[in-house]
Amino acid sequence: MTTTEGAAGADEQQVRDARLVLGWLVEPGSKQLYELVRAHGPVEALARLTAGAATGALAEAAAVRLNGRDPARLAQALWERGARLGVRIVTPESAQWPEQLDDLRHISVEGRDTIDRDTYPPQCLWVRGPHDLREAGARAVSLVGSRSSTVYGAHVGAELGYGLADRGWTVVSGGAYGIDAVVHRAALAAGGLTVSVLACGVDRPYPLSNSALFEQIAEEGLLVSEWPPGTAPFKVRFLVRNRVIAALSRGTVLVEAAARSGARQTLRRARQLGRAAMAVPGPVTSENSVGCHEELRREPHEPVRAVASVGHVLEEVGGVGDLAPVPRGREQALDALDPVERQLVDAVPRRGAAAAGQIAYEAGVPLREALAKLPSLALRGHVREQAGGFVRARNGAGS
Amino acid sequence: MTTTEGAAGADEQQVRDARLVLGWLVEPGSKQLYELVRAHGPVEALARLTAGAATGALAEAAAVRLNGRDPARLAQALWERGARLGVRIVTPESAQWPEQLDDLRHISVEGRDTIDRDTYPPQCLWVRGPHDLREAGARAVSLVGSRSSTVYGAHVGAELGYGLADRGWTVVSGGAYGIDAVVHRAALAAGGLTVSVLACGVDRPYPLSNSALFEQIAEEGLLVSEWPPGTAPFKVRFLVRNRVIAALSRGTVLVEAAARSGARQTLRRARQLGRAAMAVPGPVTSENSVGCHEELRREPHEPVRAVASVGHVLEEVGGVGDLAPVPRGREQALDALDPVERQLVDAVPRRGAAAAGQIAYEAGVPLREALAKLPSLALRGHVREQAGGFVRARNGAGS
Repeated sequence: MTTTEGAAGADEQQVRDARLVLGWLVEPGSKQLYELVRAHGPVEALARLTAGAATGALAEAAAVRLNGRDPARLAQALWERGARLGVRIVTPESAQWPEQLDDLRHISVEGRDTIDRDTYPPQCLWVRGPHDLREAGARAVSLVGSRSSTVYGAHVGAELGYGLADRGWTVVSGGAYGIDAVVHRAALAAGGLTVSVLACGVDRPYPLSNSALFEQIAEEGLLVSEWPPGTAPFKVRFLVRNRVIAALSRGTVLVEAAARSGARQTLRRARQLGRAAMAVPGPVTSENSVGCHEELRREPHEPVRAVASVGHVLEEVGGVGDLAPVPRGREQALDALDPVERQLVDAVPRRGAAAAGQIAYEAGVPLREALAKLPSLALRGHVREQAGGFVRARNGAGS
Repeated sequence: MTTTEGAAGADEQQVRDARLVLGWLVEPGSKQLYELVRAHGPVEALARLTAGAATGALAEAAAVRLNGRDPARLAQALWERGARLGVRIVTPESAQWPEQLDDLRHISVEGRDTIDRDTYPPQCLWVRGPHDLREAGARAVSLVGSRSSTVYGAHVGAELGYGLADRGWTVVSGGAYGIDAVVHRAALAAGGLTVSVLACGVDRPYPLSNSALFEQIAEEGLLVSEWPPGTAPFKVRFLVRNRVIAALSRGTVLVEAAARSGARQTLRRARQLGRAAMAVPGPVTSENSVGCHEELRREPHEPVRAVASVGHVLEEVGGVGDLAPVPRGREQALDALDPVERQLVDAVPRRGAAAAGQIAYEAGVPLREALAKLPSLALRGHVREQAGGFVRARNGAGS
């Protein structure tokens, strides 16, 4: 496993080092940092931020984390820790960078509440696993949901995770208990690719009880985090992390969620990003589907699409030709008849023949039409002609 | 039980008789008949339709049913049959006429396919039961669904039927097996009012196995039909009847429906009429919810709202003040904190105190803010101050 991609020139390495230090000095999502970097580039932004004279909350927060160290030495330490653990760095300058993450700078300000203020793109990502992150993200769907999943939610999550992976889609989720774990496992079971975006270091995935799953993902999929190895999974970080799950994929499916579920925030991010936002209906008698139904009840200007199958999901995120067939149920013989013919067949008795006039009377159609259409209905097997008139055919329409 | 409402004058009686003959001579929903009556009034329309020289499909169909009889004698016969069975007539001229049925003349032509051509208002209604139909329809919701209901659908149907009736809403349905029967029974159980709109004579309700239910509705609710007593329940008539179920109420709820269910047509009529159109989500693993989910998947210009409770239904059909409370789940202590406070609490260790500087480092916030906010967090019980710094409070946020 490589710990960097290709040979980085001196400048490239400087930029990468600046990114990984910035990514650690300032908690992810900061608009201020994003704009500082956009204005001056990562190297100069880091220099300004860590200059002794720098003031403001951003510089103060950075100073606490820098703790008097030399930024270059901090970069070296972070880098070495990653290398030792087999973790590589992917920055916006890397060929492996999934460009769709840059869309995070467009999340509308109106959509931001207090907890939402940090929604700007990551400075860098720490990655474990044998795949190219950019390629993995090219055809990706996020499947998320509650930690306290039901048998129903787990079943549906497994169906979707397996089916999407089986069709070559990368399944993105957050590695949590419940739905997240189910969809990761299902994608792996399908021999597909799955990406787990974590709220802590990729060397210490959380929760511990999913350790075996995380090891498998590190070997067959991708573990991704904005935080350097060793970082603890603080609660707030899950919410900050959610924007990356939403931004990495073409759409997010809320598989099963109670009213209060962090996964709903991921769906919201998908909406704010203009990505497909989907939710799976469930029994209205289940507390664990209340969150999904609340999402489906949104007004038309905040659309969340109900999806019940892999086909429905592909219809939202796929290209031309991915329209799911509309379930039609069994076709019935009645479908082939015109309205007057249906009226006539209805009025033909099941036992004992009736004359055309009587049938016209019962059906309420002109006698002329009855006389014209009954023989044709008999030819097509819907009624039988016998002495005295017509009787319903056993296997015809309406039988 | 009265068989007419109030004393009808000679002219009124003539109009009423013309209506009930027209309602029988021509199968319900006819646009041609509706326009003939609108242009000339019922009496003159009947005279023209039954004049020997009348031509065209409408006159021919009427001639079959009239069968050479005198229209006045047919009226008398129909009237006497109704009176004998305790069935009364309600026409657009009656005080009991629910005016919202007249909206049926506005169903858009684009919405009509072959089976849909008959969507115009009824000429008259045959009614059994001790209530004023107009009053019963003033605050009404239609609950419809598949005949092959599941335990789940029956449960939800009963909850909605009971709850709506209990809140003074009339529950309208079609008297079929399954969901229809469940919602009628639930409304009756709540001591509420229920209206069953039938596709056959109100003296011979279909299906037979619901006979006891129909008798109870005739005694405590209302049985309604466009067809005179004695008329058989032909298949096509169910579809024609559906428009009345949709038009009578302020909104239609599809409780449970397979992909192919006549109840979906009732929901479609509700949409075409600009009434509230609603569907109950169910397990995506259930064939019997596929119809509901397909309805919920409609594009925003054909809105069908997901409803999971009586409150949700009332939000669609009720007035101001009927907004359902949004389920929020248990409030958590973390909600009361600002984002920086959340970061700080996350970073306070659960065991062994940490100094403010260490906490600021872990959280990635300025030391100044940590020093300012930690004592306040301690005062509010989220963290405890002890020798060496701060430790997480047992019952505080994030515990």
